[in-house]
Amino acid sequence: MRDASDVLRHVVVETPLLESPALNDTLGARLFLKCETLQLTGSFKFRGAYNTLSRLSPAQKSAGVLAYSSGNHAQGVALAAQMLRIPATILMPEDSPRIKLANTLGYGAKVVTYDRLKESREELGERLAAAENLTLIKPYDNYYVMSGQGSVGIEIAEQLKERGISADICVAPAGGGGLIAGVSLALRVLAPTIDIYSAEPEGFDDLLRSLAAGERLANEPGASSLCDAIMTPMPGVLTFAINRETLKGGLAVSDEETKAAMRAAFHYFKCVIEPGGAVALAALLSGKIDIRGKIAVAIASGGNVDPELFSDILVERDQ
Amino acid sequence: MRDASDVLRHVVVETPLLESPALNDTLGARLFLKCETLQLTGSFKFRGAYNTLSRLSPAQKSAGVLAYSSGNHAQGVALAAQMLRIPATILMPEDSPRIKLANTLGYGAKVVTYDRLKESREELGERLAAAENLTLIKPYDNYYVMSGQGSVGIEIAEQLKERGISADICVAPAGGGGLIAGVSLALRVLAPTIDIYSAEPEGFDDLLRSLAAGERLANEPGASSLCDAIMTPMPGVLTFAINRETLKGGLAVSDEETKAAMRAAFHYFKCVIEPGGAVALAALLSGKIDIRGKIAVAIASGGNVDPELFSDILVERDQ
Repeated sequence: MRDASDVLRHVVVETPLLESPALNDTLGARLFLKCETLQLTGSFKFRGAYNTLSRLSPAQKSAGVLAYSSGNHAQGVALAAQMLRIPATILMPEDSPRIKLANTLGYGAKVVTYDRLKESREELGERLAAAENLTLIKPYDNYYVMSGQGSVGIEIAEQLKERGISADICVAPAGGGGLIAGVSLALRVLAPTIDIYSAEPEGFDDLLRSLAAGERLANEPGASSLCDAIMTPMPGVLTFAINRETLKGGLAVSDEETKAAMRAAFHYFKCVIEPGGAVALAALLSGKIDIRGKIAVAIASGGNVDPELFSDILVERDQ
Repeated sequence: MRDASDVLRHVVVETPLLESPALNDTLGARLFLKCETLQLTGSFKFRGAYNTLSRLSPAQKSAGVLAYSSGNHAQGVALAAQMLRIPATILMPEDSPRIKLANTLGYGAKVVTYDRLKESREELGERLAAAENLTLIKPYDNYYVMSGQGSVGIEIAEQLKERGISADICVAPAGGGGLIAGVSLALRVLAPTIDIYSAEPEGFDDLLRSLAAGERLANEPGASSLCDAIMTPMPGVLTFAINRETLKGGLAVSDEETKAAMRAAFHYFKCVIEPGGAVALAALLSGKIDIRGKIAVAIASGGNVDPELFSDILVERDQ
């Protein structure tokens, strides 16, 4: 983990840990926001991608990498590959938001689109990877990806220490669980008294339920959520093996609570957070756990949201 | 100046100096954004306010301070006073944006409102200050205010040095000119090869014209601008004495260019910038000076913008 941190220092943005005196007054607590929205590519995903790509063998690097993602992992892999001069192929649904397609292309990746309804990205990915000898970079179930994301936790521990304080609670968004697995491992070593909770959207609270059950459970099909970035079907194998040991529990929030958190981040922190990136802040602001008199950290994991959606949420116009 | 930096270290947020690989590619340059939007109270004004208030004598501190401002200076003084346990009275127009009134009250200041059309804030301020023996904290024409704002320049120099680079150009928004006076003094010492330019809205380009004329010129009455925070009538006496020596020149931008810069900051940096805070970025993005092949820094000086206005600008809806 420290090793990942050494690779990433001077490459990633050491994102600020912000607090707002005005918001603290309202809450009767100290709430810190770890702004991974300000990371390169607009999300923490760049950390894990860069860490993983930098560990590939020379042969793997020259053959190139493959990732499938419609969002933040795609951009993270594309930029890391560009910086490390590794050819990258990204499989994206042909109906991905244009801005995400454009950003991924902008980082020099080769984008292959597919029809989500008719084609399987796994099959297509395997075929492409085999044909061109590409290394598949999974979004979370990969040791180097998790330890890269864990550098967020190392920074949090260091930034709290610089202030001469320790926190009581840390909440992080969870999709496949790579961010919170890395962060919780780091904090367990560096700040072992912090209780760590995952945050998920209602209907996609597979980690919450899996933690309670002690085994990996999938989400019921048919749910919908604003939080596109973290609508994963079930916890990862490697990530859950860690998270079941390190987490205190899981929290779930509604879309309305997520939107309120996005507005609060605009107002108090001047930060743009995407829906999936705002669920940890939403869990704390909506009182899912009592933080009065305590010091709490919420990770804002990404900021890649379309202007139209952000604009509507800001003024509470119905989507 | 270093002295101010020592007072402020551990009190202010060391705001990040961000860059976007995607935006750099588009510009053929390296553009860094110094995000003072993430400063306490949402603007750089807190730095100068805290520095000034911390220098008052014990008698001045216990009697209290007075400021007049409808915006960022009010919030900066109010929070600095609250942190230093100094009573603060802020004179604000009764038609100030409710959010700014609420924030200022929220920091524990006593707010006195006046009718902008019928009363003079200077007279009212003098009367109040005399009656209660309050110390007036001017927004820019004050040595400690300027040197407090100059800590932004010290951070920029240090942050560039950490990256092992030096910049060619730095652009900062200018209202009364306190920020750019402090920043330019700091950079002149710490990074003397940087050319420093002010940025102002069209119609309020008094510093640009004053620099060209070699004397303080006022704006023509009747102009309008989106940039409420920097619609000052003419350069300050003390600030202009510095800026005429330290600046390379002035740049002016249209409201449309400012709005485009706010959208670019949302897209590339996930940062909320208010119109007056975005003029430096606007000057660079709209090509007022050629930065191709160069390293440039734009200061984003504040982020206190109403959600309705920001929402409209984001989706290019007419205000």
